[in-house]
Amino acid sequence: MAYVVGLMSGTSLDGVDVALLDLQETENGLDTTLLDFKTVPFQASLVAEIRKSLSIEHSDSQLICSLNFKLGVLFAESVKMICSKNGIAASQLEVIGSHGQTIFHQPEQVGDFAASTLQIGEPAVIAYETGATVVSNFRTMDMAAGGQGAPLVPYTELLLYRDAHKNRLLQNIGGIGNVTVLPQAATLDQVFAFDTGPGNMIIDDLMQRLFQRGYDSGGEIAAQGSVNEAMLADCMNDDFITAAIPKSTGRELYGKEYTDHLLTTYNHLAPKDLIATATMFTAKTIVSNYEQFVFPKMRIDEVVVSGGGSYNETLLRFMAELLDGKCVVLTQEDIGYSSDAKEAVAFGLLAYETLHRRPSNVPNATGAREHVILGNITYPPLGYKKEGANFA
Amino acid sequence: MAYVVGLMSGTSLDGVDVALLDLQETENGLDTTLLDFKTVPFQASLVAEIRKSLSIEHSDSQLICSLNFKLGVLFAESVKMICSKNGIAASQLEVIGSHGQTIFHQPEQVGDFAASTLQIGEPAVIAYETGATVVSNFRTMDMAAGGQGAPLVPYTELLLYRDAHKNRLLQNIGGIGNVTVLPQAATLDQVFAFDTGPGNMIIDDLMQRLFQRGYDSGGEIAAQGSVNEAMLADCMNDDFITAAIPKSTGRELYGKEYTDHLLTTYNHLAPKDLIATATMFTAKTIVSNYEQFVFPKMRIDEVVVSGGGSYNETLLRFMAELLDGKCVVLTQEDIGYSSDAKEAVAFGLLAYETLHRRPSNVPNATGAREHVILGNITYPPLGYKKEGANFA
Repeated sequence: MAYVVGLMSGTSLDGVDVALLDLQETENGLDTTLLDFKTVPFQASLVAEIRKSLSIEHSDSQLICSLNFKLGVLFAESVKMICSKNGIAASQLEVIGSHGQTIFHQPEQVGDFAASTLQIGEPAVIAYETGATVVSNFRTMDMAAGGQGAPLVPYTELLLYRDAHKNRLLQNIGGIGNVTVLPQAATLDQVFAFDTGPGNMIIDDLMQRLFQRGYDSGGEIAAQGSVNEAMLADCMNDDFITAAIPKSTGRELYGKEYTDHLLTTYNHLAPKDLIATATMFTAKTIVSNYEQFVFPKMRIDEVVVSGGGSYNETLLRFMAELLDGKCVVLTQEDIGYSSDAKEAVAFGLLAYETLHRRPSNVPNATGAREHVILGNITYPPLGYKKEGANFA
Repeated sequence: MAYVVGLMSGTSLDGVDVALLDLQETENGLDTTLLDFKTVPFQASLVAEIRKSLSIEHSDSQLICSLNFKLGVLFAESVKMICSKNGIAASQLEVIGSHGQTIFHQPEQVGDFAASTLQIGEPAVIAYETGATVVSNFRTMDMAAGGQGAPLVPYTELLLYRDAHKNRLLQNIGGIGNVTVLPQAATLDQVFAFDTGPGNMIIDDLMQRLFQRGYDSGGEIAAQGSVNEAMLADCMNDDFITAAIPKSTGRELYGKEYTDHLLTTYNHLAPKDLIATATMFTAKTIVSNYEQFVFPKMRIDEVVVSGGGSYNETLLRFMAELLDGKCVVLTQEDIGYSSDAKEAVAFGLLAYETLHRRPSNVPNATGAREHVILGNITYPPLGYKKEGANFA
C-alpha cells in the first residue's frame, strides 16, 4: 500500500487538480484506488502572473523565477490540504507527482528556438514543505528522446484501463479529440495513440457565437436540430481526417477561422442545425479514424469516452449510431473512473513509476525514439544525523 | 571507485567548466582525485542568448524554454568530450553534477517577487545524451529551507580540505572575498562561512581605469607602490568589515561608485600607490575579519587562498605580514588542488552526495533552517525490457 498524490494544473488556469491515490503493486501491475480528488482554485493575482508568464511579450526571467517558487508553495499547500482531510500526514506519501504549469511548449524547432518545453512549480518547495519525495518535469525527457513530450497519459491508460479480454479505445473529447488504442492484455509496444481531429472546439465556438453559451450542455441543442448533409460533406473533406497516424493537431486548424467559414457559408441554416451538424462532424471524424486506422487491425469491444465531450449525450448517440453496433460506447464514469481526475491521477502514477525507475512514455504516442524514465526526483530533508551522512 | 563529472558555468559566461573525478568512499569520507579539467567555451551566439535571458527587459518564456534545452545539449557534449579524452564512456559515469546557468537569483523577497533562484541547462537532455544519471538544480532546496541558496561550496570544502590536526581557513578571493572556517576534524555543524568584504574588485576596477588592464598581474604594480595610510584608514572606516557574521555582500558596495570616490579623493596619489593601498585594503579586511570572528574562537594553522587573488603575490605577502606569523598563507595549488576547477569539482561531489541521499548544504553558511538534500535526480533511459517494467 502506498499513498500517492498527483497534481495537474492545465491551460484553463482554474486551479490545481489534486488526486490522492492508494497504489498497490500486484502481479498484474499497479492496483489504483482514487481516495479523494479536488480542484484547488488559483487566486486571481496568481492567475494574472501565470497569464503574464505565458505571454512571450510580458514574461521575463524574474517573473518566471518567482512564479516557479510561488506555484511550489501553492502545490504544497494543496497536497497538505487533501492529506489532512483524509487523515494522512503529507510526509507519509510515497511520492507526489507534479506536472507543473506549462509556461512554454514547442514540440518542434522554430527558427533559432530549440524544440523544448518548460513546466514550473518548484519541486524543492513541494518536497520541503510536505516532507515527501516529488517527481516533476515529466515532459522534458520524452522530448530529449526526440518525442513531442505529449501525450503522456497513454501509459497510465494502459495501467488503469487494460483489460485481459477486451480491446478498448479510450476516446478523449476535449477541445481536440484524441484516442488511445488499448488491445486486450496489451504490452506497452502494442499501445498507440493519435489525435482524431476536432473535439468540442467547433461546437463550443458555434454555441458561443449563436447562443452565447460556452458549450452545448448535454447536447440538448444538437438533439433539437437536424444534420445538414451538404455541410457535413464539406467538413469531412478534410486532409487531417485521412492523414496517416501518428498525427496531432492543435487549435490552429479548427479555430475561429474555421467557424467563420461555416457561419458564412451556411448562414441559411438554423442555428440548432449548425450545432447538430458540427456535433455529427466531430462524431464522424472520430469514427472515420477508427475505420481507417483501428478496425482493420482489430475488433474493438468498448469505446470509453472522457473529457467534456463525454457529457454531450447527442455526441455519444451519434458515435454509437455511426459505429452501428460494432462496439459499445461508454463513459469513464460507466467503468468506475472520474473523468475530471484523470490527468491528476495519471501524474501520480507516472511519479510512482519514475520513483521505481521504470520508463513510462509511450513512443507510439509521443514519437520518442525509445522508452525513457520521465521526470526528476527531489528528496525531502531527512533527519540529518540519523542518516549516516559523511559528517554526522 | 566511481567516475563523476562536475559542470559549472558561472556569471563570466566564458564557457562551462568540466571536471572529471574519481571518487572513493573511505572510512574518513570521500577520497577525491581530479582526473581532468577543462573549460569548454560558449559560442558567441549562445553567449548572446544567455545575456538576453539574464536581462529582465529582454528575456521571455520562449527564450528561456529554448535556451534550457540548448545548454543541456552543450553540457552533454562537454561531458562526452572529457570522457572520451580519458577513455571512459559517459554512460559509465556514476553521476553528473550540473550547476546550470543562473538566469535569476533573488535570495530575498523583492516586492511581489518571491525569494527564488533559477538555473537552466536541461538535465533530461544531459542524461539522455550521455546515458548517465544527472543531479541538477542544487540551489532551490536550500532556498526552500529558508537559506540564500549560496554559498554551496563549504560542504565540499569540508570534504576536500578537512584536516585531522590543522585548523584551516579557506579564503576565496574573487570579486568579493569569502572565507570558510574549517576546524580540525570538523563536523558539518562546526563549519561556518562568511564574506570578508572586497576581493579583487576594487583593485581590478582601479587597474582598468588607471592602467587599462583587467587586473594587477601577479601583484606587480602593487609591489612597486607604497601604501597610503590616510587612504587605508578611510577605506577601513567601513561598516561591513565590523558587521556581525554570517554576512554577505554583493557587487553593489564596492563597485564603480566606490572607486569613483577613491579616484576623486586621492587623485594626488601616484597610480601605483592607489593600487598598493587598495591591495593592502583587501588584505586588511580579510585579516581584520579573522581577528574579530575567527581567532577569538580558535588558533588557525593555515590560510588556503583560492580564486584570482591567489595569483596576486603582493596581496598574499600583505596578508602574511598582517597575520604576523599567526598562521601560514598557502594557495590551493600548494596543497595539491586546482583553483580553477574548484567549483566544477564541488558540484560533482554534491551530486554524488545527493545520489546517495545525503544532505550537503551548510546551514551556517547559507542561513537555511536545516540540512537538506540538494538538487534533483534525472535518470538516463534503461534497456526497457531488461528492467522488469510493468509492461515488459
